[in-house]
Amino acid sequence: MDRRKFFRNGSLFTIGAAVLNPFDLTAKNVDFESLDKNKKAKNIIILVSDGMSSGTLNMADLYLNRKTGKGSNWMQLYKDNRVSRALMDTASASSIVTDSAAASSSWGGGFRVNNGSLNIGPNGETNLPIWQKFKKSGKMAGCVTTVPITHATPAGFCVSTKSRNSQDDIAEMYLDLGFDIMMGGGLNYFSPATRKDKKDILEAFKSKGFQVARNRSEMMNTNNEKPILGVFAEDALPYSIDRNNDVKLQETTPTLAEMTQKAIEKMKNHKNGFVLQVEAGKVDWAAHANDIGGLLYDQVAFDEAVKVAIDFAEKDKNTLIIITTDHGNANPGIIYGKNANTNFDSIQKYKHTNEWLLNEIHPTSTVAQVREIIEFANGTIVNEEDAKTVLSYYDGLHKEDGGLYNYKKLPFKAFAEMQEKTNSVGWISMDHSADYVELAMFGPGSELLKPFIKNTDLHYLMLQAAEVENKF
Amino acid sequence: MDRRKFFRNGSLFTIGAAVLNPFDLTAKNVDFESLDKNKKAKNIIILVSDGMSSGTLNMADLYLNRKTGKGSNWMQLYKDNRVSRALMDTASASSIVTDSAAASSSWGGGFRVNNGSLNIGPNGETNLPIWQKFKKSGKMAGCVTTVPITHATPAGFCVSTKSRNSQDDIAEMYLDLGFDIMMGGGLNYFSPATRKDKKDILEAFKSKGFQVARNRSEMMNTNNEKPILGVFAEDALPYSIDRNNDVKLQETTPTLAEMTQKAIEKMKNHKNGFVLQVEAGKVDWAAHANDIGGLLYDQVAFDEAVKVAIDFAEKDKNTLIIITTDHGNANPGIIYGKNANTNFDSIQKYKHTNEWLLNEIHPTSTVAQVREIIEFANGTIVNEEDAKTVLSYYDGLHKEDGGLYNYKKLPFKAFAEMQEKTNSVGWISMDHSADYVELAMFGPGSELLKPFIKNTDLHYLMLQAAEVENKF
Repeated sequence: MDRRKFFRNGSLFTIGAAVLNPFDLTAKNVDFESLDKNKKAKNIIILVSDGMSSGTLNMADLYLNRKTGKGSNWMQLYKDNRVSRALMDTASASSIVTDSAAASSSWGGGFRVNNGSLNIGPNGETNLPIWQKFKKSGKMAGCVTTVPITHATPAGFCVSTKSRNSQDDIAEMYLDLGFDIMMGGGLNYFSPATRKDKKDILEAFKSKGFQVARNRSEMMNTNNEKPILGVFAEDALPYSIDRNNDVKLQETTPTLAEMTQKAIEKMKNHKNGFVLQVEAGKVDWAAHANDIGGLLYDQVAFDEAVKVAIDFAEKDKNTLIIITTDHGNANPGIIYGKNANTNFDSIQKYKHTNEWLLNEIHPTSTVAQVREIIEFANGTIVNEEDAKTVLSYYDGLHKEDGGLYNYKKLPFKAFAEMQEKTNSVGWISMDHSADYVELAMFGPGSELLKPFIKNTDLHYLMLQAAEVENKF
Repeated sequence: MDRRKFFRNGSLFTIGAAVLNPFDLTAKNVDFESLDKNKKAKNIIILVSDGMSSGTLNMADLYLNRKTGKGSNWMQLYKDNRVSRALMDTASASSIVTDSAAASSSWGGGFRVNNGSLNIGPNGETNLPIWQKFKKSGKMAGCVTTVPITHATPAGFCVSTKSRNSQDDIAEMYLDLGFDIMMGGGLNYFSPATRKDKKDILEAFKSKGFQVARNRSEMMNTNNEKPILGVFAEDALPYSIDRNNDVKLQETTPTLAEMTQKAIEKMKNHKNGFVLQVEAGKVDWAAHANDIGGLLYDQVAFDEAVKVAIDFAEKDKNTLIIITTDHGNANPGIIYGKNANTNFDSIQKYKHTNEWLLNEIHPTSTVAQVREIIEFANGTIVNEEDAKTVLSYYDGLHKEDGGLYNYKKLPFKAFAEMQEKTNSVGWISMDHSADYVELAMFGPGSELLKPFIKNTDLHYLMLQAAEVENKF
């Protein structure tokens, strides 16, 4: 079928932004030698490093390059000239700086919504999420993430609900929807012990015929016959750097790459194809905490998931891969200075996140203990004065308020400012930024990408690449 | 001539990085319908917004979009799918975070040098600057900038010298080289009153047959017969926002777009073509001062120069346009928050830079006067406490040390932190970052660009696009 003809005469572009801004089908940014321009994307895998500023992307590449001599898989795709690229404007309906719910809804529903909403527009209108559209069209659908599976980014592809905070409800919506594989953290929203309504949603999934995996080996042992729910932590999964240095966490929780591999295996033989969202959700959480160990190693873990997806797509030849982020966060970067190289390289010695480290310190810790904890976690010796400053935040009076996921009011900001002296990494804030973000596409459908898009454009591009008419 | 054949068999790639990493001539990122793949770039215009982090690029687009309904000319090229794009690794020989001298030398000489050097390698080797190569090949050559014309970025295309700080010497080197049009600030390095050796370099240029323009109208009145030296300020030219609100500055100093237009007019009829570097040097200075008014309006002024260059290239059809930056600086961005939109829009009311404003305050100023100055310059009312904080930096004891060009030790950092409450713009530091940067190309030769390049690659790409063999 000639897709150009089909869509030019068809009804794909009958709603919303697409009417005003239809994709120009003039082929560009395309490797004409390897791509059939009219080839349909049977499968789509969208990989989202949540809250990834451009500095996060390039620090991960620099880190890998300096440590191993080889940069990131994401940048290698550029070096090998194998992708189409765009800058993406990430605004929401309510702000030039989006939150993850509105960002995912723009992709998921094709319309901008207010920050905090999931596919419910500013006037209360409900937008049908794209994974439901693909499911209705006969494809399998799934999401894997390192944060609760009920969190904003997966939810924006799956459900419509007024508030991203209704994670109890979102877990039940997933039960009704019955997508083929949903894995991440978030036990708190499935367990009768922690849900407000005391319902046992895990049992309900089992009754509906789901395989429910609660740890890494249970995930590995699932078969491909029945749908899979994987819930590997009460809230988010551990940061990669903490997992890498903790044998128990390695046993209990899978990596993002492992979840990605499992999800592909589960769905790859479906005759009508599949759609999969892969989210490195804790890249965003680490940016909110100005936690460089959390940020960098989770971005590297994301990059390993990119490799899994690309390796599959290379063989499959029918899969569109989309690699991007939903918004910037904290705009981290390596700052000029005589010791910038050695300072940045010191992060290679880090064994734990600042979250881990700051949780190891207690009001009764001594200055010597604080110095020891920091030296163990960062491989860096801090002086007594700096250790005293850190400890001063544990006196019960002098608390820090910054960081979205900083429930315990730990001194993330003060610690990152202190760390900057030895790692040369700076941050503009502990929150999202309005930066346009990097987006890359590989495989059939990537020729549809223009160099600058609005986040909502991606919704229509995915449907178009898969030749799914937008009639629901 | 078939350029592919010519260069594959030719000797272009006989030195340096190019041997290890020759350009893959597989055409990609190309509009095949409008481009002759084998067409030579007779002219090259490279436009550099110095120290432009990705947030600077997109804040300028957002600012213009929200104010006028139309974004930047640079982003419009993306929206219209008219350019090839790359991410560029900007490192120097000595650091992952470059300075402007090493950055310009990577393009200018084709080799990475240590920070601070201009085309003198780590082992003392001298690299021939690319504007000298093009001049030898018969083209006209020039540079225009908003900082001293002897500053690092133009100098890196023109001369080889151990230290960027030897601006007195660089002025004399320019005299020897006799490029066709050199314009910017930097009278201090040409005038007997301020040069250490008391030489009158302006007179020497005149004796050599140059037209010397000292202000905007003199520049406008130059003819195209003789070469032109334009020196419009003792040091850098004024910031655009200060010039926009000062009739005298408008009379005395040209805009970057006007200098660009003049340089093109001067050289466009040369039978062998021309090469021109256009630098928005004060975007970098503003980032070093965390001075959002300076940054944003100078980025907009740069964008107007982009339009001048593109308008010419569109008609000419033989001109390669390169638009980029040499490195990030301070990674500014708009931070998430309820008032992000209105706060960011408040910058539309700014009349002056923080530099102007902080120079208006004196040790004897009253708190009321400080509030008045800020209200006049920013259109924003600050409370007494904040005004007192600003004034406290003028007591002769309590001085701020940050910011590369902050000779007077004005409280730029403290002021930007205070301003963040009302404009939502944050900064990671007052210095360069290691971020990979945006690069776009338009016109013949743009098909040579790969999605990821090292800064040195650009040297060889320019020679290749112009079909100038690298034999000097």
